[in-house]
Amino acid sequence: MLIVQKYGGTSVGSVARIHAVAAQVAALAKQGHQVAVVVSAMGDSTDRLIELAREVSAEPDVRELDALLATGEMVSTALLAMALKKCGCAARSYNALQLPIETTGPAGRARIDRVECEGLKRDLAGGIVPVVAGFQGRAANGDITTIGRGGSDTTAVALAVVLKAGECQILTDVDGVYTTDPRMVPEARRLPRVSFEEMLELAGQGSRVLHLRSVEFAARHGMKLRVLSSFEPGPGTLICEEDPNVEAPTVSGIAFNRDEAAITVTQVPQEAGVAHAFLGPVSEAAIEVDMIVVNAPRDGRVDLSFTVHRDDYTKALDLTRHAAGRYAGAAVAGDDRVAKLAVVGSGMRSHAGVAAKLFETLGAEGINVRLVSTSEIKISVLVAEKDLERAVRALHKAYGLERPPSH
Amino acid sequence: MLIVQKYGGTSVGSVARIHAVAAQVAALAKQGHQVAVVVSAMGDSTDRLIELAREVSAEPDVRELDALLATGEMVSTALLAMALKKCGCAARSYNALQLPIETTGPAGRARIDRVECEGLKRDLAGGIVPVVAGFQGRAANGDITTIGRGGSDTTAVALAVVLKAGECQILTDVDGVYTTDPRMVPEARRLPRVSFEEMLELAGQGSRVLHLRSVEFAARHGMKLRVLSSFEPGPGTLICEEDPNVEAPTVSGIAFNRDEAAITVTQVPQEAGVAHAFLGPVSEAAIEVDMIVVNAPRDGRVDLSFTVHRDDYTKALDLTRHAAGRYAGAAVAGDDRVAKLAVVGSGMRSHAGVAAKLFETLGAEGINVRLVSTSEIKISVLVAEKDLERAVRALHKAYGLERPPSH
Repeated sequence: MLIVQKYGGTSVGSVARIHAVAAQVAALAKQGHQVAVVVSAMGDSTDRLIELAREVSAEPDVRELDALLATGEMVSTALLAMALKKCGCAARSYNALQLPIETTGPAGRARIDRVECEGLKRDLAGGIVPVVAGFQGRAANGDITTIGRGGSDTTAVALAVVLKAGECQILTDVDGVYTTDPRMVPEARRLPRVSFEEMLELAGQGSRVLHLRSVEFAARHGMKLRVLSSFEPGPGTLICEEDPNVEAPTVSGIAFNRDEAAITVTQVPQEAGVAHAFLGPVSEAAIEVDMIVVNAPRDGRVDLSFTVHRDDYTKALDLTRHAAGRYAGAAVAGDDRVAKLAVVGSGMRSHAGVAAKLFETLGAEGINVRLVSTSEIKISVLVAEKDLERAVRALHKAYGLERPPSH
Repeated sequence: MLIVQKYGGTSVGSVARIHAVAAQVAALAKQGHQVAVVVSAMGDSTDRLIELAREVSAEPDVRELDALLATGEMVSTALLAMALKKCGCAARSYNALQLPIETTGPAGRARIDRVECEGLKRDLAGGIVPVVAGFQGRAANGDITTIGRGGSDTTAVALAVVLKAGECQILTDVDGVYTTDPRMVPEARRLPRVSFEEMLELAGQGSRVLHLRSVEFAARHGMKLRVLSSFEPGPGTLICEEDPNVEAPTVSGIAFNRDEAAITVTQVPQEAGVAHAFLGPVSEAAIEVDMIVVNAPRDGRVDLSFTVHRDDYTKALDLTRHAAGRYAGAAVAGDDRVAKLAVVGSGMRSHAGVAAKLFETLGAEGINVRLVSTSEIKISVLVAEKDLERAVRALHKAYGLERPPSH
């Protein structure tokens, strides 16, 4: 099988780790697989480069920052290729200019447009393991670009797609995707398989295993993803299309995110454009709004609530207060000690009662639900931060997530 | 004037130094000059990368080592371009793949073949300072190459030649080329001007200011070089063609090199191929031989002496002893506590008495001369290491080098 493997920063964080990764890749190649590898920068080296740039300039030029950061991945590709050759496995490092990996879009947040893979195909056919620098690309004008944090996952998927790989394996410091964070719920169980959709909801809600864009990319091209530990062997979690022959579990997992803050405007006249009057200024200030809830009108007035990242709370509150000034009777309140949890599962589509069980469980625990928002395969609720852990544990148990599904 | 400036590792060794260099470049640009900059890797970062590679593999793959080392210069170009932009000077970093700087020859010791400079010319015409990574190139197959230690000087000269610059300035931690090392002879005087030929002899003899290849390259293309301090202002030393209208000083400077070891084979039969019988095995072992002296034959036998780097002494001595085994009566002796000094000056061509004064001076000091070798503009002698300092001081005084030439 042709396999694209991606190793994250922790997996190549030291010379010892690089040797361990080389041994793993060499073993896979020896089994007869064709392997292409994508690597991130070693450990915290990207952070150290950013620090260096900030020492030079508080707002470093974005073109030059990209050129600087891209060197981190170049270092790890060269070292891994050396280590592979040392253990008898033919290898060759590539940076984004060499392939090239063509990108469009702004520096720091470029998007991969096209990957020239003729050289890679030649290498693979000749038994050579290409080791490609993740996270970086080349703009049409020849500039080095970077594709955003976590972008190495996306590089790996892009490579897997153009190479028509059998699987794109993301090797990281956890051994798969879990029903919820095992640090919070010891009974949390590794999911052998999740659908792209579920993974998108889980990743978007704070399960930091995989970069969201890489999952979208893989889903769009139907490329199978597998999350594996680079530290210990195991089957990991396969992320792929839903299997229509298998009944999806009602609930697959529970994601959560602590860094939330909620803002509520009460008694706003119900008129066209009122939501925009509040949310417009917030997004113009480049503040991302997450949940948005507007209740049913009463006496021609509604309550509008939304959540933002805790770091943006003060600014968003100011902007909202300013906007509320135009509406007599409207009042603004906020709370930055809230957390979001989301129950995710493809089976929700065909199973009723998921929401009922959620409210029943949280009610029995005496946990107040502040906001609710739903999608086809997800129910998100906002709770007080102090209640988060209790809520996740109770729900994990209520949905029986500690047990493998019976099918 | 169009000026190419090269800043060495010490000159860009810290963020503070990078800001200082940016200020200097920006000031030059503000004076109306067009400036292109070549930079080395920061401080000891190349050494640190080599160390990292050696941790991965005792003999790291040369292709990958080049890819690794080239990142050092990429880091400093990006940081310097950031610093320039921060102080209001338009700038743009380039690595060797981006221009490209095309090279041929083996990894680690590639030679610059061609520099594509259309982009650089556009930048310069548009008031943008291009900041180019030194020391690196691109092979025909797209591999990253490096052009050997000190190669950034050569990059700068190559750029200056293709851009038809008025001058190529090498900014370093000394303020010019001296009559001899000022740490040894406090009266040593900065030379305002030396010829390419003199500089080649001075650099080749251990005056570590400029990389030999860059001087050859500049000489071949008649590109004026200027050695300047990046730490303090000053006129530096101009290295250029000899001015036929000015009488060259008889002696310009005294170079020396402590790391020498001498090997002598006595009583070798004078027959064809005998020098090769000794020197062949030594150079096959990749040991560089410096001075070679064969005396006039006596009774059909000669003495053969040569010098090698002190690190290679034991190995060279073994090889020579082995070779001497075939010649009955031949004896091998060695001394690794010797040093070489060389008196250099274009004016020697037309002035007699330089050698006489050398032997007279050393004789008066009671210093024994072990080997002598001469070229058109240089006399090299080997002395005991303990005598070196006294010899250099005495000769510096004897040739009146502390005084500027009278013309």
